[in-house]
Parts: sequence; structure tokens; C-alpha cells
Amino acid sequence: MPKSPNSHTLVAFDQELSHLDRLLVRQFELVRGMIRDAMTAVAQCDVSLARQIILRDNEVDDLEFAIENHCIKILALRSPIANDLRWVLATLKASSELERMGDFSKNIGKRIDVLSLDPNIKVNQNLQMMGVVILDQLEKLLQAWIDEKAEPTMAVWKGDEAVDALYDSTFRELLTQMTEFPLTINSNIHLLFIAKNMERLGDHITNIAEDLYYRITGQKPAADRPKADQTCSAASYTDPALMALKKEGAE
Amino acid sequence: MPKSPNSHTLVAFDQELSHLDRLLVRQFELVRGMIRDAMTAVAQCDVSLARQIILRDNEVDDLEFAIENHCIKILALRSPIANDLRWVLATLKASSELERMGDFSKNIGKRIDVLSLDPNIKVNQNLQMMGVVILDQLEKLLQAWIDEKAEPTMAVWKGDEAVDALYDSTFRELLTQMTEFPLTINSNIHLLFIAKNMERLGDHITNIAEDLYYRITGQKPAADRPKADQTCSAASYTDPALMALKKEGAE
Repeated sequence: MPKSPNSHTLVAFDQELSHLDRLLVRQFELVRGMIRDAMTAVAQCDVSLARQIILRDNEVDDLEFAIENHCIKILALRSPIANDLRWVLATLKASSELERMGDFSKNIGKRIDVLSLDPNIKVNQNLQMMGVVILDQLEKLLQAWIDEKAEPTMAVWKGDEAVDALYDSTFRELLTQMTEFPLTINSNIHLLFIAKNMERLGDHITNIAEDLYYRITGQKPAADRPKADQTCSAASYTDPALMALKKEGAE
Repeated sequence: MPKSPNSHTLVAFDQELSHLDRLLVRQFELVRGMIRDAMTAVAQCDVSLARQIILRDNEVDDLEFAIENHCIKILALRSPIANDLRWVLATLKASSELERMGDFSKNIGKRIDVLSLDPNIKVNQNLQMMGVVILDQLEKLLQAWIDEKAEPTMAVWKGDEAVDALYDSTFRELLTQMTEFPLTINSNIHLLFIAKNMERLGDHITNIAEDLYYRITGQKPAADRPKADQTCSAASYTDPALMALKKEGAE
């Protein structure tokens, strides 16, 4: 971890900030592990792995609590300013995002029980690809956090578009499948919520990238935020209204 | 607004804290208005109202930005401790929750376009009841924030169970309808996501109640958190596996 620009005469303060960073990196790694296992549990309908993920969420919550307390201690006793204040605030926010990411992974894990009851369950390829992209984004974000580099942070921030595009395709495919094969509705609804959880994981990665960019530069990213979920107005590929529009070339 | 227990000799500091509170109450009121209109837009499939909600989200985001900047200024210039530090941190967190609640309301608004295309759309009564309960919870939370009272804050914190129970019923009813009438899938999927957004609104109200309780008492609520979404393992009322379980009296 590079030294903070305002090098402290108070060694104890430096140590407190380093300890804060270690806690956050630990939380990052835990969440990354949960997401990785959640993807495997979905692909293989692995109920036992899913149950492990659910149990591990407590550790993520405990870390958020420890990080929050450590931040409050630093704010109260050290009255940090400038770069150090940004460090503490960005960590506080990022830790809260990671806690939610743990919740989403747990939520994915909870849905495996139902999916495992369906012998014909087929996990959409775009959904699996979402998992690959999210894990790659998270890996790059963790590295950018450790290196405190603005450029790779912005690359992660912009990278959420790929997750959104895959979510859009997954949404439409699952909806089409449900419309064509109503017997698949129960399982596909849960896959749809899993996809939505993954899309939200991508949003939280974007939020942490914003926190980190602020920590490094003192600014919010200047560009427009990558577009969010576009499926709010989406219909299935077989929807008559949509097909009519397609024929008219209105799309 | 009652005076902070640590009454300040610095009048300017008191004014800064009061200004912070005014900004947060304004953000609260904006989000409450968005949720109220989102409920109306869903019930009446009102596309024009839905578009207004979407536009108003920018104002909520701007307020979050203003609150965050004001908090950073106070932290950097006043180095608050004890009760004042909690006040600033709780406001920072609550504002971020409200920003997300604005996003959820906007997301509900965005789905009205698709719903309005379906002439046979029927909005589930439990879904409408969720809206009523959420608005009531939000009203009580705002009052508790203004009064700085721990007891009504805990009542709001515990009240999320009612929202979760209504979400659970809505989820099962929509799933059943889709299974029985596959032509309703497109609309019902969007209603399902609206219900999920509303359940998340309830979660964020609980989070703000936790922030407020911390601001008032310096503690997190001691009791277990109200149970979260139980639909992860839910099936429709016509699901054969579920019906078999019912017959066996295993439910």
C-alpha cells in the first residue's frame, strides 16, 4: 500500500489508517469469495455450497461493524482533514456497499434450494457470463483500491455497461422462455431475481469505484454515470406488441 | 427540532447542524412525494405521473450531494465529537438511503409504460396495501427524526415485518397468476419487480431507523433485525411440490 501523501508524524495514526485498510481488504476478499461461490452454486445447483455462502454473510456484517467503529474512533480522536478525511469517509461508504453485496450473494444462495427441485433447470449462458464480468470487475477494483490509482478505478466505473447489457439479454431470454414454456415459470422467476441481484452487484461495484475515485482525487467522476438497468420497459422476444414494432422497423 | 444535548457556544456550528437537518428533511419529503405518486401511478397506470416521478429523482440526488458536502465541511472544520459526530454520520448514512429510495421510486415509475400497454392489467390488492404501509412507516420515521425520539424509531424499525408479509403474499399471488394465465406473464413480471422495489423501500426505512436510533442513543438496536424477504424459497400456490406438502400437512 503506497504511503498517504500527508505523511504523518503520528505513527499511531498511520497505523490506524493501515489497520482500517486491512479490514476493508479483508471484507472485499470475503465478498469476492461469496460471489464466486454463488456463481458456482447457481451453475451447478449446489445446495450445500449455497448454504455455506448464507452462513458466511455474518462475517461480512461483523466486518462492516468493526470498520464503522474504527472510522468513528479515528474521526473522534484524530479529527482527520483533507486526504485522511476522504480516506476514512470513502472506507465507511465502501464498507457499507460491500455489506450489501454480501446480502445479494446470500440472497442468490437462498434461491438455490428451489432451483435444485427443478430437474430440467437450464442456467442461461448470459447469466453465467454476468458472473464472470462481475468477478473480473471486483478483482480490478480491489487492485485499484490497494494501488490507489485513479485510471483503473475509472475503467471499473465505466465497465458496468457490460454487466447491464448482459442483464438485459438475460431478462429478455428468461421472459421469452417463461412465455413459451409456462411450466418453467417457477424456476425462471428465481433465475430472474438472481440476474437482478447480479445487476445490483455491478451497481455496487460502480458505487465503490466512485468512493475510491473520490478518495484519490477529492472529486466525483465527471462523466455521466454508465446507464442503469434498461429492462424496466422490456418485454419478452415473443411479445406481440414488440413483434409488431419490430416489423414496422420502429426498433 | 429539540436542541442538541451538547449545547454549543459556537452559534455558527449550531446553525450548520440545523441547516443539515433542514436539507435532510427536505430530501425525506421529496422521496415521500415520489413514493406516494409511484403508488398512484401503479394503481391508475398513469404514464404521465410516472414520467414526472422519474424527472424528480435528480433533485433527490442533488440533495444527497449537498448533504454529503455539508457533512464533510462540518467534519473537516468543526471536528465534532460524541453526540454531534453521531448526528453528522447518521445524516450522511440516512441521506444515502434516501437517495436509493428515490432510485427505487424512479424504477417503479419506469415500469408504468409497459403496464399501460396491457388493457387487462389488475393491480394486486396486497401490492397496494404495501404502498399504504410503506408511506405510513415513512411518515412515522420522519416525525421520529424531527422529534429525536428512540421509542417511535424502534416502532418503525420493527414495523417492516408487515411490509415483508405483504410482499410474500404478493409474490405468491403474482406467481400463481402467471402459472395459470401465461398471457399475463409480461405485465406480472413488472408488477413482481415493483413489489420487490417496494419491499426494498421497506428495508431502507429500517436502515434509516437504525441510523436514527444510533444518532439518538449511540447504540445499534439490540434486538434481532426483522426478518427479510422470505420469498427466496417460494413457489406459486399451484406448484405441485408445494401442494403435495400441503396435503401432507407438512406446512
